[in-house]
Amino acid sequence: MSPPNPTARRSVAELQAGERVDDQVYRVAQKDLRTTTNGSLYIHAVIADASGQMPARMWQASQEIYDSIPEGGLLHFRGRVENYKGSRQFIIDGLRRVEPGMFNPADFLPSTPHDVGVLWKQVKDALRNIKNRDLLALVGKFVNDAKFAADFQRAPAAVQLHHAYIGGLVEHTRNLLRLAEVVCPLYPEVSQDLVLTGIFLHDAGKVRELAFETNFEYTSEGQLLGHIVQCVLWMHDKCREIERETGKAFPADVEMSLKHLILSHHGKYEFGSPRLPATAEAIMVHYLDNLDAKLAMVAEAIAGDTDAGSNWTAYVRALESRIFKPDVMGTRQPNP
Amino acid sequence: MSPPNPTARRSVAELQAGERVDDQVYRVAQKDLRTTTNGSLYIHAVIADASGQMPARMWQASQEIYDSIPEGGLLHFRGRVENYKGSRQFIIDGLRRVEPGMFNPADFLPSTPHDVGVLWKQVKDALRNIKNRDLLALVGKFVNDAKFAADFQRAPAAVQLHHAYIGGLVEHTRNLLRLAEVVCPLYPEVSQDLVLTGIFLHDAGKVRELAFETNFEYTSEGQLLGHIVQCVLWMHDKCREIERETGKAFPADVEMSLKHLILSHHGKYEFGSPRLPATAEAIMVHYLDNLDAKLAMVAEAIAGDTDAGSNWTAYVRALESRIFKPDVMGTRQPNP
Amino acid sequence: MSPPNPTARRSVAELQAGERVDDQVYRVAQKDLRTTTNGSLYIHAVIADASGQMPARMWQASQEIYDSIPEGGLLHFRGRVENYKGSRQFIIDGLRRVEPGMFNPADFLPSTPHDVGVLWKQVKDALRNIKNRDLLALVGKFVNDAKFAADFQRAPAAVQLHHAYIGGLVEHTRNLLRLAEVVCPLYPEVSQDLVLTGIFLHDAGKVRELAFETNFEYTSEGQLLGHIVQCVLWMHDKCREIERETGKAFPADVEMSLKHLILSHHGKYEFGSPRLPATAEAIMVHYLDNLDAKLAMVAEAIAGDTDAGSNWTAYVRALESRIFKPDVMGTRQPNP
Amino acid sequence: MSPPNPTARRSVAELQAGERVDDQVYRVAQKDLRTTTNGSLYIHAVIADASGQMPARMWQASQEIYDSIPEGGLLHFRGRVENYKGSRQFIIDGLRRVEPGMFNPADFLPSTPHDVGVLWKQVKDALRNIKNRDLLALVGKFVNDAKFAADFQRAPAAVQLHHAYIGGLVEHTRNLLRLAEVVCPLYPEVSQDLVLTGIFLHDAGKVRELAFETNFEYTSEGQLLGHIVQCVLWMHDKCREIERETGKAFPADVEMSLKHLILSHHGKYEFGSPRLPATAEAIMVHYLDNLDAKLAMVAEAIAGDTDAGSNWTAYVRALESRIFKPDVMGTRQPNP
Amino acid sequence: MSPPNPTARRSVAELQAGERVDDQVYRVAQKDLRTTTNGSLYIHAVIADASGQMPARMWQASQEIYDSIPEGGLLHFRGRVENYKGSRQFIIDGLRRVEPGMFNPADFLPSTPHDVGVLWKQVKDALRNIKNRDLLALVGKFVNDAKFAADFQRAPAAVQLHHAYIGGLVEHTRNLLRLAEVVCPLYPEVSQDLVLTGIFLHDAGKVRELAFETNFEYTSEGQLLGHIVQCVLWMHDKCREIERETGKAFPADVEMSLKHLILSHHGKYEFGSPRLPATAEAIMVHYLDNLDAKLAMVAEAIAGDTDAGSNWTAYVRALESRIFKPDVMGTRQPNP
Amino acid sequence: MSPPNPTARRSVAELQAGERVDDQVYRVAQKDLRTTTNGSLYIHAVIADASGQMPARMWQASQEIYDSIPEGGLLHFRGRVENYKGSRQFIIDGLRRVEPGMFNPADFLPSTPHDVGVLWKQVKDALRNIKNRDLLALVGKFVNDAKFAADFQRAPAAVQLHHAYIGGLVEHTRNLLRLAEVVCPLYPEVSQDLVLTGIFLHDAGKVRELAFETNFEYTSEGQLLGHIVQCVLWMHDKCREIERETGKAFPADVEMSLKHLILSHHGKYEFGSPRLPATAEAIMVHYLDNLDAKLAMVAEAIAGDTDAGSNWTAYVRALESRIFKPDVMGTRQPNP
Repeated sequence: MSPPNPTARRSVAELQAGERVDDQVYRVAQKDLRTTTNGSLYIHAVIADASGQMPARMWQASQEIYDSIPEGGLLHFRGRVENYKGSRQFIIDGLRRVEPGMFNPADFLPSTPHDVGVLWKQVKDALRNIKNRDLLALVGKFVNDAKFAADFQRAPAAVQLHHAYIGGLVEHTRNLLRLAEVVCPLYPEVSQDLVLTGIFLHDAGKVRELAFETNFEYTSEGQLLGHIVQCVLWMHDKCREIERETGKAFPADVEMSLKHLILSHHGKYEFGSPRLPATAEAIMVHYLDNLDAKLAMVAEAIAGDTDAGSNWTAYVRALESRIFKPDVMGTRQPNP
Repeated sequence: MSPPNPTARRSVAELQAGERVDDQVYRVAQKDLRTTTNGSLYIHAVIADASGQMPARMWQASQEIYDSIPEGGLLHFRGRVENYKGSRQFIIDGLRRVEPGMFNPADFLPSTPHDVGVLWKQVKDALRNIKNRDLLALVGKFVNDAKFAADFQRAPAAVQLHHAYIGGLVEHTRNLLRLAEVVCPLYPEVSQDLVLTGIFLHDAGKVRELAFETNFEYTSEGQLLGHIVQCVLWMHDKCREIERETGKAFPADVEMSLKHLILSHHGKYEFGSPRLPATAEAIMVHYLDNLDAKLAMVAEAIAGDTDAGSNWTAYVRALESRIFKPDVMGTRQPNP
Repeated sequence: MSPPNPTARRSVAELQAGERVDDQVYRVAQKDLRTTTNGSLYIHAVIADASGQMPARMWQASQEIYDSIPEGGLLHFRGRVENYKGSRQFIIDGLRRVEPGMFNPADFLPSTPHDVGVLWKQVKDALRNIKNRDLLALVGKFVNDAKFAADFQRAPAAVQLHHAYIGGLVEHTRNLLRLAEVVCPLYPEVSQDLVLTGIFLHDAGKVRELAFETNFEYTSEGQLLGHIVQCVLWMHDKCREIERETGKAFPADVEMSLKHLILSHHGKYEFGSPRLPATAEAIMVHYLDNLDAKLAMVAEAIAGDTDAGSNWTAYVRALESRIFKPDVMGTRQPNP
Repeated sequence: MSPPNPTARRSVAELQAGERVDDQVYRVAQKDLRTTTNGSLYIHAVIADASGQMPARMWQASQEIYDSIPEGGLLHFRGRVENYKGSRQFIIDGLRRVEPGMFNPADFLPSTPHDVGVLWKQVKDALRNIKNRDLLALVGKFVNDAKFAADFQRAPAAVQLHHAYIGGLVEHTRNLLRLAEVVCPLYPEVSQDLVLTGIFLHDAGKVRELAFETNFEYTSEGQLLGHIVQCVLWMHDKCREIERETGKAFPADVEMSLKHLILSHHGKYEFGSPRLPATAEAIMVHYLDNLDAKLAMVAEAIAGDTDAGSNWTAYVRALESRIFKPDVMGTRQPNP
Repeated sequence: MSPPNPTARRSVAELQAGERVDDQVYRVAQKDLRTTTNGSLYIHAVIADASGQMPARMWQASQEIYDSIPEGGLLHFRGRVENYKGSRQFIIDGLRRVEPGMFNPADFLPSTPHDVGVLWKQVKDALRNIKNRDLLALVGKFVNDAKFAADFQRAPAAVQLHHAYIGGLVEHTRNLLRLAEVVCPLYPEVSQDLVLTGIFLHDAGKVRELAFETNFEYTSEGQLLGHIVQCVLWMHDKCREIERETGKAFPADVEMSLKHLILSHHGKYEFGSPRLPATAEAIMVHYLDNLDAKLAMVAEAIAGDTDAGSNWTAYVRALESRIFKPDVMGTRQPNP
Repeated sequence: MSPPNPTARRSVAELQAGERVDDQVYRVAQKDLRTTTNGSLYIHAVIADASGQMPARMWQASQEIYDSIPEGGLLHFRGRVENYKGSRQFIIDGLRRVEPGMFNPADFLPSTPHDVGVLWKQVKDALRNIKNRDLLALVGKFVNDAKFAADFQRAPAAVQLHHAYIGGLVEHTRNLLRLAEVVCPLYPEVSQDLVLTGIFLHDAGKVRELAFETNFEYTSEGQLLGHIVQCVLWMHDKCREIERETGKAFPADVEMSLKHLILSHHGKYEFGSPRLPATAEAIMVHYLDNLDAKLAMVAEAIAGDTDAGSNWTAYVRALESRIFKPDVMGTRQPNP
């Protein structure tokens, strides 16, 4: 294999141990100035782009170089990739600023492998199956809110638990809607309209709970209120808006059933739901949500595992277990 | 002691074993048609007024009599009071309908011993100490909402845990405001304005969570959403209203700090708070609320205890203990 | 409406208050001899058939009559239906023994409203989609075990939580297989073969855990080991049987993955799973199982609720909530 | 700003990055001998005084130098303050022993900012409000025990949770007494005498549970028995002493009510209370104690936070939350 | 079988259904005045003696008769034994007072089947194996305290969990000492002296926690402090007494190790231990105590079970299980 | 003391700080390649043999040297022992491969100090006391299974909690049998046969749950099923084997009682027992198992503690406590 051209674009995921890099732009996900035991300084950092991230070190650093690095920002890097304790590590030989406006830091955040536009279209298509006019009007209020639509397509579904990447929210929501479309017909006594609307909105508050411009973190309002209550407030405002526009009351029982579904979808008090599911629709959304989220955690735990010597991933706290990796039934091989 | 005049008004609390009653109006808090083992029917009921309640029985009853009794409604009663297993029991000899409009069923619900008007005035006086104009405006929106003010003065603070009587909410709120007035000066870094506003609103959602016209029970919205979220929604609407009226944004950090305080004031997820207190003000309201509520439970457990043979009340679930009754330090005797 | 013919077959569900019955066979689900306060004896019993059950009383009873009633057995009844506290109650005027062999007590147990033969066929059809030959062989061992097949079609899915009626196990299993058929295609990395086999066997141990001949109760082995371990032992025996017949080892990784799925399908230690789900297939079966079981509990809670005056069912322990009854979205009464 | 005079007394809190120090005495809170990767030795230590603490390093160290440093003891230091990863770090260039008796190591422990003598006087003043002669005698036994009084004024209120500094116990106790003085009048049925005595003694066992001469740590008896039981034993001894001196029995109900208050003041079994509060006084002390302790934790978390880039402190385990730092209502900057 | 002589002493356990009783003395463990549905009064009571207890009814009663019955006291009874729902029931035809001083109510409490004097001697014999002089002195202080010795031989080990009968404490203690004598030699690093002393004292506080003169119930001090703390206080007093008598300090480490063992012997905070076992001796006593107590609960659950139709006892809360009754290995039949 | 001969066999436990080693064989329990801050490489490793383990470093290492070291394998070492932060550290000056077949890596794992052959003989002797022929046959099936017997004598009792060394399982089992032999006679109603068999098998599944050839870790089957279920399956197979050989059914009640005992011996759901003990035998094995395991943890915590300056070991998670180290009663020094 001939060595890759050092100036062609190389994503973090593509970089190989032993490879040299002459000029590549990466995001600095984290930085740290450390002193060696003989008094000299070095920088410990994490470089990243949409494809993944990697630890990096710059020897012979100085406070000035350190201060010039923007945390969460982009830089041109020169250096090489070493093998360190079985993992790759980037040794920085040089770095320089990026021209303002040349690159968008957001392009360097981890992202869904799917086409976000397609996911969003699938979400909208699924929502067209809602027959109840009031719920349809409410959903329309969100879908046609350009700021909401843009944020909804960018937001991660979580800071780190599952679908924790740009587009994760729309991907997770699409998955749930797809599930509901096949599961609802098996339980005709459950209102598909309420389930579809509930799925669309259940995590919509994440758009306000999380910041995801150049980093994934909680907003202050997100920490103080939580996405569950934020979403209920948002939905409440949209209902009032509809009332003002139509001059008709939004049906109170539909509104409170939907609010209840959102409030209770975590299914347990200790996970931040102030109510427990008390309707069939709330119960269905709770279990479908868990099913998709937990399967994503399993897939991510296996994909992110690097210890080829073990049949088990590291402990996954949210699953209270390590995951068994072997593809016993052969369902995970590229060509089945 | 000469027997009381059987036609003068006798409250449930005043009735003595052995006493005859010719014509008294009471509320039917509960009713039940039962068959005796020899096939005849009798009615088991609970009669009540603002002073308390008592079990009652009507022998030789019929389905017709039973159907004519309005649950939660008022009736004229004729009968006598017996001693049954150490407790009073009312034997119904006759009953007849109350003229519509003659009496207000609500007058026959358990009520605070205090003057509700005075309590409400004390609440308003305490709130006048708020200096922040935005919070003052918000409080004013509620205080000047005639429907809210009327309901707030009638609502119980709970269905049964503590202050579970007409006027209980305003009494409990008054108590907390009084506490805050003496405690806040000891902790100058805590915002008294936020604490006073938070206390005023922390249980205001009870007005919507509970129905208390002729009985104490949860509304459907109350069960589906809970008073915590109901209050946050209400407060949210009032803030928007202020914004529309003033044309100025309500300060976002003040609004979300207050919402957080309300959401977190139960202090634990399992008690229905979707957030845990993360500010000094939220912590203070949580502990003052507990202090007053738990002391009320102790007082009510002792007052409601009828077993003179024991030093201990029955087990009080919310306190996870029985309560020790002796007045060891002599603080409960008016004149020791 | 003309009164029903007192000798035509009247199911328990059909009996109306006021109706007289001359000769009907019912099962005695429970019996109790009680003394009235004036010293005479009466019998309190519960009569039942596949359509439901009803409390019953026989006045002027004797120890001899009482002893002649077989608990869990059948009798001819003469009597009438009364209205007692808003519910029906059967007054027994006479009873006599059933000719041995004339009726099957099992026909008088509560039963699925579905055709058990159809359910069983649907289960077998779904299992034919399994492609892995080893799992297919294992499933065949059970399906072709006549005793197992017969028991599997009769067993309830639980003693009382959900699908607690004859045919409940095969109905619940059919539901889950139907769910898996639509959900698995959305998660191609999850082995549908393992999921289908796992669903078929996950509760198969109930056949041994429960007795359901004339009553629903735990067997001693069921209480000592539990259906989860009983099923793993059973499956283990079938694997060994296949090995003896084919002379080839059953693949160890497939066997232990399936055993793990069964052991962990309750999802929590406190529900009796000695392991927590550590594979995607185990997680999927756990959530689909919960989804169907909990929706059945909601439906049963609403169907079984008799208090027309409340929007809420009684508290359902397994759901940690009361259930909101109104059919807000109109999905439950298409054409009643 | 001209550089500080290197020989004038500089507290740890005053030291600035870049500053040189010629001869300062600090306490060695911790020490560690480490090997650099090229084989030479260096010392990692923490230096401290009453004002705070700071990490320190001495390059080119030896086992001899290391052994000469007394852990928990005092040394003269020469060196300079560097900026390391945004925090100060002391580089030790030289050190030498302190003349025995010249300094008191205890003066170099973290201390309350308040005047301990004033706090103690405030405590004694508050206790003078006790009217019950027996409780007054008991309190007197402690107050007039010179060893107790001295220790009580020095002990921290905890090893690290809150008021974890010299004088912390008397400060926390003073705060609670001040709270009781304003709160008790609002609840006349609660015995102020019992509450004041209970507050004074509730944590008095800390004097025996903790060692705080040159370090804060648990004594062996403290770990084996806990301050709750230690205090009950101590109080028991004082009651017996009073009985021997007066020849009269200490009233048993008062004694056991007070013991109960102390045993139950943690409010939960899992926090080491062998009893749960069963009297109004025990409940009041429990909540006032929590209120002051938790507000102190909030204040300490904010004061100790160094990450100016975040609105949130690090997670505080005892509060089960991170704390929101912004001074939204402007109550924390009297003059900023 | 000829009928028993109606005037000879018949213990409650001996009474047969159908038997008449002319004059027998029993204890009234409970009494209740109830009204029949036709207005007449009857008394529901429980009669008891050392051999067991039985429900009783007296028809045609009056308030006067009811008031004349001393709860927890003794009466002469005339009447007959009936079979009621498969259990015996005593029908009272007449009753009269017992001459004061003729009988001791305590003789009519449930009692150990063993000879209490023998048990006490076995306890003292076992304690003679203690070699440490200080522990021996401490044990002696208790053994030679005549009031303690008498109470210790009478006290039950619990109000209802296990060994809940007169002599239960000394029997349970004897069992544990016997266990320790055979187990300690297998763990020579564990101090047998400390274990024996700890066993002797671990539940000695029950003597003060419980009242057991005419009934088993908690004393007020018992409820406020608990036997664990009561015992530590008692032991503390005895150590001080020894010090006063010998003029020598009781070794502090031995005393605090023993106190720790007592405080921690329940092994969990939620069972009222303020400390968890931190020494080998504390751990040993905790497990031996559990072993004997839990085996006693199993034996009592099986012995007390009356449902011959089931292989399982009722649910035993302290064991979190029902107990499997069949004597599978034939160890419970004297002669199999 | 003259220095030890550098070529004589020196166990890891014997090595002294300052000692030189010319040629010793140790196991590499762990290895790690690290980069110094000036770019050179060094190896961090842990060397071990049956006597214990020690950290080691090799300066001036290379990727080639690192790759040549077999993790879990043996090497000849040359180097010296240094004192590092109060602990010993091995500095590797050279290493070379071990001739294949010269040494057995298993000899270098931590091992019981006892003679395994003697322990095994004691186990077999104890089992000879079983009188029930069926249980005796079952036990014989295991004892006479050469592969089982060999593994049983090598397996550790746990990966790290207690008896985590070669021979730990047979030692722990021997201890429990010894306990049962002295305890069973005190509880004649408990079947000694079932207890002895249950003890023998309760942890026998560890042989399959754990791998212990060159390291202690869980097998995949061990993680997926757990030793409790593995043992029940194993025992099930042996029962079937006996049935095939004898042509007689193994008594079902004995088999299910034994399976229940094994399933429930952890005593709590959260410790992986799918059933809670419901027989006296299951309860006895549960407590004896805990007693021996917890006392072993105490002994190991004290033996493994290296901080001479503290009276307390580090926190032991499984005991939820630190352990008090002083040998207060002098039972741990053979000759003090």
